[in-house]
Amino acid sequence: MFQDFKLVEDRPVAIQVKEYINRLIIKGALQAGQKLPSTREMSLLLKVSRNTVIAAYEDLEDAGFTYAIPGKGSYVAAMADQSAEEHGSAGESAPWRIDWKTKVNEYAEAAVALDRIKHGIRAPKGTISFTSIAPDESLFDLGDVKRAFMDRMAIEGQVLLNYGYAKGYKPLIDYLMRYMENKGVDTRGKDMLITSGFTEGFDIVLSALRPAARSGAAICENPTHHTAINNMKLQGFEITGIPMERDGIDVQRLEAVLQTGCFDLAYLTPSYHNPTGIVMSPAKRSAVMNLLMRHQVPVIEDGFNEELRYSGAHVAPLIATVGQGNGVIYIGSFSKVLFPGLRVGWVLGDRTLIDALESIKRARTIHTSTIDQSILYQYLINGNFDKYVRKARAEYKRKYELTKACCEAYLPEARLSGDGGLHLFLTFPPSVNTQELLEACMERGVIFTPGDKFFIHPGEGTNTLRLGFSRVTDELIERGIRIIGEQARSFL
Amino acid sequence: MFQDFKLVEDRPVAIQVKEYINRLIIKGALQAGQKLPSTREMSLLLKVSRNTVIAAYEDLEDAGFTYAIPGKGSYVAAMADQSAEEHGSAGESAPWRIDWKTKVNEYAEAAVALDRIKHGIRAPKGTISFTSIAPDESLFDLGDVKRAFMDRMAIEGQVLLNYGYAKGYKPLIDYLMRYMENKGVDTRGKDMLITSGFTEGFDIVLSALRPAARSGAAICENPTHHTAINNMKLQGFEITGIPMERDGIDVQRLEAVLQTGCFDLAYLTPSYHNPTGIVMSPAKRSAVMNLLMRHQVPVIEDGFNEELRYSGAHVAPLIATVGQGNGVIYIGSFSKVLFPGLRVGWVLGDRTLIDALESIKRARTIHTSTIDQSILYQYLINGNFDKYVRKARAEYKRKYELTKACCEAYLPEARLSGDGGLHLFLTFPPSVNTQELLEACMERGVIFTPGDKFFIHPGEGTNTLRLGFSRVTDELIERGIRIIGEQARSFL
Repeated sequence: MFQDFKLVEDRPVAIQVKEYINRLIIKGALQAGQKLPSTREMSLLLKVSRNTVIAAYEDLEDAGFTYAIPGKGSYVAAMADQSAEEHGSAGESAPWRIDWKTKVNEYAEAAVALDRIKHGIRAPKGTISFTSIAPDESLFDLGDVKRAFMDRMAIEGQVLLNYGYAKGYKPLIDYLMRYMENKGVDTRGKDMLITSGFTEGFDIVLSALRPAARSGAAICENPTHHTAINNMKLQGFEITGIPMERDGIDVQRLEAVLQTGCFDLAYLTPSYHNPTGIVMSPAKRSAVMNLLMRHQVPVIEDGFNEELRYSGAHVAPLIATVGQGNGVIYIGSFSKVLFPGLRVGWVLGDRTLIDALESIKRARTIHTSTIDQSILYQYLINGNFDKYVRKARAEYKRKYELTKACCEAYLPEARLSGDGGLHLFLTFPPSVNTQELLEACMERGVIFTPGDKFFIHPGEGTNTLRLGFSRVTDELIERGIRIIGEQARSFL
Repeated sequence: MFQDFKLVEDRPVAIQVKEYINRLIIKGALQAGQKLPSTREMSLLLKVSRNTVIAAYEDLEDAGFTYAIPGKGSYVAAMADQSAEEHGSAGESAPWRIDWKTKVNEYAEAAVALDRIKHGIRAPKGTISFTSIAPDESLFDLGDVKRAFMDRMAIEGQVLLNYGYAKGYKPLIDYLMRYMENKGVDTRGKDMLITSGFTEGFDIVLSALRPAARSGAAICENPTHHTAINNMKLQGFEITGIPMERDGIDVQRLEAVLQTGCFDLAYLTPSYHNPTGIVMSPAKRSAVMNLLMRHQVPVIEDGFNEELRYSGAHVAPLIATVGQGNGVIYIGSFSKVLFPGLRVGWVLGDRTLIDALESIKRARTIHTSTIDQSILYQYLINGNFDKYVRKARAEYKRKYELTKACCEAYLPEARLSGDGGLHLFLTFPPSVNTQELLEACMERGVIFTPGDKFFIHPGEGTNTLRLGFSRVTDELIERGIRIIGEQARSFL
């Protein structure tokens, strides 16, 4: 015994010794009542210092795995419950098996079926991948993030590590309220809930607005953010998609659809719309808001990548256009611009509504990570955000223009859309099936996201694809798009 | 104009200047086409350096709020959308009002109604408060937490700030799997999902197991963790509570109840049960597991404060007693022992089930904060956890014994329960209504948690209360309990 002890680096040795003996007890290799070797003997057996063994023995005793008899040594304690056999682990009776496949409900099944990431594309290393629209992590200014953390910990570390508030970290809320005011939002009568990113915010809003007795009815741009489609489907909404035009949603179609029935909400992404990259024109924003107000359909505005403006005048978010009105719920996040790993988003809307959402948030997750919120807050007030966005914007703009130029050169058959952001959207002639194109490209080491998953109904958008360029080098952008172009030719 | 500019400390001046001018534009105090003062003039007007103004002007132009005419200066850009008036903010037509009270559904209404924290006790400063069972933040070892963060950031900071995985941070999962094995769990066929604390884990499990066509049926200890009661109610479960005895759930009653119908799950907290503080005896653990296995009722085990053992032998969690069986879902968290601000919990259970839960987690929040997960991971492998728990356990044990002694001295009429943890539970003779007792005590500056909220049905437990002692000083524990005793006398 004690021959198979192996030290690993980077972990305190006493803890490794403790866990090693702990395991021997759990496995039954050391039995109740058995005397452990003396600390001196054990230190020779395991080739560690005697003090280390003493510390490990103390911890074992503390945890109730052993007991000490003064002057005699340490003994293995009887396990309070050794009944695994009784319940069938090793004994004669079979272990307790539940067939979880039949136990989980339709919601869980739908979540699995809609989970594209789980069934996503697996590509070998070295593949040129245009599938990601996450930021390029080499742009991250780690020094500033570390400083933000250390600054905040020095100010109120103990507070940050204890419970926070469901509504969010107060200094961050105050900051973001002012931030939204600077975009032209009239915050009177409105309030804010901090969530774990956009997705949680959206899911909580849907869960509060989903009708109880019937399916919900939602309107959205088609195509749109596929996570949002999933959430609406999972929450039981019937979705009516409105096609996109070059400057945003098709207003005529929206008007026609609004006349056909009642809708519980409209989900809209007016800026750098995912996946098309289109920024809704000011004239359309105004027309869309007038229509939805007239039909009393509340708007959930996705502030997605609003910060990634590459050129042109400031365009106010929809929520800024209703002044003191309360018909728009704005969900924002810095994830795509800043750090997706920091799971922080915010919901800005009518005070009464936010009050209800706060209770749902509390029931679901108590509150969003205070560490995340406070790092973000300190990073913002340190002025790092403005500095970082300037740098990131310049770099992404350059890549955006390169990608666009490459598409125009190598994929002249595809219609391009995308006024900014971290991706471009391509629409091929109907003969090009982008799932098949993907398979052909994969063989040549290039992958992208076929566009069909952004559409509401199966069979739509099979001739579209999304190219995320943020994490691809200039050289590979050029090479990758050239290869897609070569492969696409055979489908034309 | 420009007279009301006021600098605040601790924020970059250029950003303050930018936001100040931004606001003047948004408010319409600076109109489209208007020329801004030159950078030299503005620096005199605002009493800041000229370089600061230059930086602010660049940012404003970058954001599309102004444009520069070379050789002439900066001009205010036309807002792309100034239609707030059209939609009724300041114009003649009324603003768009939605009555959100009528828009939100029963789920949201129930969440508000069950939200005790929102309707919780507000006590003036200086009140002796026994309401919290959060850890004492003065015990937090901030230096170790900072070191854990800096260590991990140095190793893979850029990875941590970008997207993570819905399932969780791999090194942490591996660590916690081994941690659970050290408690005697057979992890074969099992897997783990990291969640934002216990509450999210529990809510996700319920959402997957809630029957679609009918109300769910759940069994639990009565009283029990009130957040868990809320979650079960919000997810549409009918709850059958089983009374507690001194050594845990009443097994006879459990058996009788199991014979009356079908149950979808049993929610159990075998260690340091909240609110009673009882540790279920090994014999009961075995009996309970045999019963539930025979009736094929899956168990959700709440690992609440299992780490806060003050004395006695190691007691294996329920999931350790089923060996390779898959009938128990274990939900753990270090929140109460370690740092509640780090929102990290874990669900350990059958691999098929965890796979479905992972998809739900992804649909709801993408993933748990990687910063939180990685700080926790590094803190654990640095050996800080063992060190901290030893310190915290010693301190809480001392306070636990003091609280117990004070209760025995000043509240001899109350039956005490609680074998450890951060609180004690008191049961008075039926004549004592603890809501009324609370009102009497508040007048003398002492508050506690009346126990009725931990019971399944209204009207139960009105003679009980919970005393959380972790954040009260020795002196105030003694004084507070003395006052409760004095007030209680008038109810007897």
